[in-house]
Amino acid sequence: MKSFRRELTFDIPTRVGFRNITPEVATCVRDSGVREGLVLVNSMHITSSVFINDDERGLHHDYTQWLERLAPHAPIEHYRHNDTGEDNADSHLKRQIMGREVVVAITQGELDFGTWEQIFYGEFDGRRRKRVLVKVIGE
Amino acid sequence: MKSFRRELTFDIPTRVGFRNITPEVATCVRDSGVREGLVLVNSMHITSSVFINDDERGLHHDYTQWLERLAPHAPIEHYRHNDTGEDNADSHLKRQIMGREVVVAITQGELDFGTWEQIFYGEFDGRRRKRVLVKVIGE
Amino acid sequence: MKSFRRELTFDIPTRVGFRNITPEVATCVRDSGVREGLVLVNSMHITSSVFINDDERGLHHDYTQWLERLAPHAPIEHYRHNDTGEDNADSHLKRQIMGREVVVAITQGELDFGTWEQIFYGEFDGRRRKRVLVKVIGE
Repeated sequence: MKSFRRELTFDIPTRVGFRNITPEVATCVRDSGVREGLVLVNSMHITSSVFINDDERGLHHDYTQWLERLAPHAPIEHYRHNDTGEDNADSHLKRQIMGREVVVAITQGELDFGTWEQIFYGEFDGRRRKRVLVKVIGE
Repeated sequence: MKSFRRELTFDIPTRVGFRNITPEVATCVRDSGVREGLVLVNSMHITSSVFINDDERGLHHDYTQWLERLAPHAPIEHYRHNDTGEDNADSHLKRQIMGREVVVAITQGELDFGTWEQIFYGEFDGRRRKRVLVKVIGE
Repeated sequence: MKSFRRELTFDIPTRVGFRNITPEVATCVRDSGVREGLVLVNSMHITSSVFINDDERGLHHDYTQWLERLAPHAPIEHYRHNDTGEDNADSHLKRQIMGREVVVAITQGELDFGTWEQIFYGEFDGRRRKRVLVKVIGE
């Protein structure tokens, strides 16, 4: 069995934002030399997500609005987590809806995707350096 | 290490619907010959889900109503994604709540499940042919 | 390839509650002898979750309030699932938001985590014995 590990780093300049990380993950898969296996891609933080959906700007706008409606940032004193001096309780909630991780099949050395599947980093408490872990196992 | 791949195809006749795909996944596990390992089951689309819950008709009705409340289909012009000519922005949102994929343990050649766990395909933009990927790795 | 399986059991004394299970999962990883691989941790039930977030009491209070707002327990007759004699339809909904499982990388024999990542069992229909499955594969 082969395994491979790489950290990707991002600095999203806004509090909320989405970035297509499919090219970086595809590079990891190629560099791993794994032909058949699985790749795990997860946020190493608890206020951001890795998820798979469409690379469409309008949809990302819709996600932003929708998540704000389901888990509003303000009033920040609404959340007990923010009593600790943080103001990011809503980010911990948004991340649960969008998920922490994706697991993707590797077949014949490539990400085994449907037509429109793309991997995104979803940031809900940005303006700082964040990390994503890519772990490949297989043969 | 062994690996196995199969696509399942579905054509749900309604916009929203749920289908128990546990028998098909169990067949994949048996056909893979893997005794100890993991099986990844994921939608290959971005407006549908694979998830694990109860095979109970009333619950599926409740999921349908609840998802419509959290991410309403109409008014379709509420969503920027629908400016592209689509009307399925809400399907992309619903899919995030229900998830893209499940990873299930394989033990002694079988799906390693609790009493009530069943795997479902959840469709949020149906009336067309869709695919689910089953990937098994192990030994 | 090595594999390892263990069930963890819990009895949360309230209907809703969160428990940090990172120490138990870390013990499984050590006992497995796997140095490079993946660990799957999933609820074996359909009204509870395994998820990764912050070990902060205020946040768990916020999760409880937020989930109750998104998927209220009462009125129980609002849900068709409860026509079966159950009163836990909301628990099946809450579990979908928080997720069934996590997959975590194992690197150099340890859980490969970011600074604040901790694994939780999230109970939404407690006051009874429940099980979590830990499955490790790797080498």
